[in-house]
Amino acid sequence: MFDTITVIGAGRAGSAIAARLRERGFSLDDDGDLRLICVPDRAIGEVARSIDLGPWVAHVSGGTPLSALDPHTRRFSVHPLQTLTLARGAEQLDGAWCAVTTETPDAHARALWLAETLGLRPFALADDKRALYHAGAAVASNFLVTLHRAAATLFEQAAAPPEALVPLMQRTIENGFELTGPIARGDRETVERHLAALRGSELEPLYLALAEATHP
Amino acid sequence: MFDTITVIGAGRAGSAIAARLRERGFSLDDDGDLRLICVPDRAIGEVARSIDLGPWVAHVSGGTPLSALDPHTRRFSVHPLQTLTLARGAEQLDGAWCAVTTETPDAHARALWLAETLGLRPFALADDKRALYHAGAAVASNFLVTLHRAAATLFEQAAAPPEALVPLMQRTIENGFELTGPIARGDRETVERHLAALRGSELEPLYLALAEATHP
Repeated sequence: MFDTITVIGAGRAGSAIAARLRERGFSLDDDGDLRLICVPDRAIGEVARSIDLGPWVAHVSGGTPLSALDPHTRRFSVHPLQTLTLARGAEQLDGAWCAVTTETPDAHARALWLAETLGLRPFALADDKRALYHAGAAVASNFLVTLHRAAATLFEQAAAPPEALVPLMQRTIENGFELTGPIARGDRETVERHLAALRGSELEPLYLALAEATHP
Repeated sequence: MFDTITVIGAGRAGSAIAARLRERGFSLDDDGDLRLICVPDRAIGEVARSIDLGPWVAHVSGGTPLSALDPHTRRFSVHPLQTLTLARGAEQLDGAWCAVTTETPDAHARALWLAETLGLRPFALADDKRALYHAGAAVASNFLVTLHRAAATLFEQAAAPPEALVPLMQRTIENGFELTGPIARGDRETVERHLAALRGSELEPLYLALAEATHP
């Protein structure tokens, strides 16, 4: 649906997307039929305004509304739902889903084409639900980093090896997030022992907020 | 080091451990040289006291001190650091680490033998660090379930498919818990948009506690 694509931005997303498009045989010209804006969220509006009207314009941001692409009306968004790193290439898009936001059937068909070309599994996302969606993605990915750091800190304090947490966390996902452990067993004494061990530490409020939100 | 082992308890841990010992050719007699107590934490003391002095006695609890095995002195603990389910068998012990707590060199050698026999990777854990260690395990595993539920709730509210979170969370672990996303980028506007979307929801305090604990 697009013969030529311009990838604007060479950060985590732009690099992986450009690598995948090159794999698929696209030459990444400066004046593509599609201008794919892969810059930090706050710069999207300025970049969009700098593009003359004519080509299709899209962004790959999770939390940014389509209005950031004003004044363009031939526009859409495809957000790869994945944590990307410059240390990996196009293959990190494989298996990831992506949120597709569009305003017209033509734009929707083009967004699905791009998702498929990139190797992503698309789902439709309403423009006014982007903040909720992106908050969910941040909870799942960014706060997973926070959770691991908290657990690793406790392990270090106990002189236990933090790398031992990795198979535990992987299996928790593999087992479909089935809750086991003291809260699942209704074992309040063990939870109280945890809290006593954490008393006064900077991890205490985090443990309390998470325990409060955990239900068997 | 033990010719006969008695596994007491047929819950998640006892079932997986008994299955592994049978795989290894042990017949699980009632009067084993080792009595391996795999019952809920609060029942360990009573079960230990019901065993006549003589055989070795061990428990597989993460948070319970060795004193729960009183009056036995030939004792130790081996805690498989894994979330276990009755839907799986012995293979779920493969690749998991285990915390080994002992009081004598003889007990330590026996605990390491049991860990190796079960297919676990042992590390030593001091008895007075069990609560910190077990709190860390609960943060990593139980609160990972909580995190996923929170993210899935936000996705449902956005009409996005919760199953799309799984590749994201798996890759976050595979990438060594590298922080990406708005907090890593110092993008306060996006975090503010998340908070505005969550305002008044029961997930707001959890998001705030996690964001507070997250540093680039």
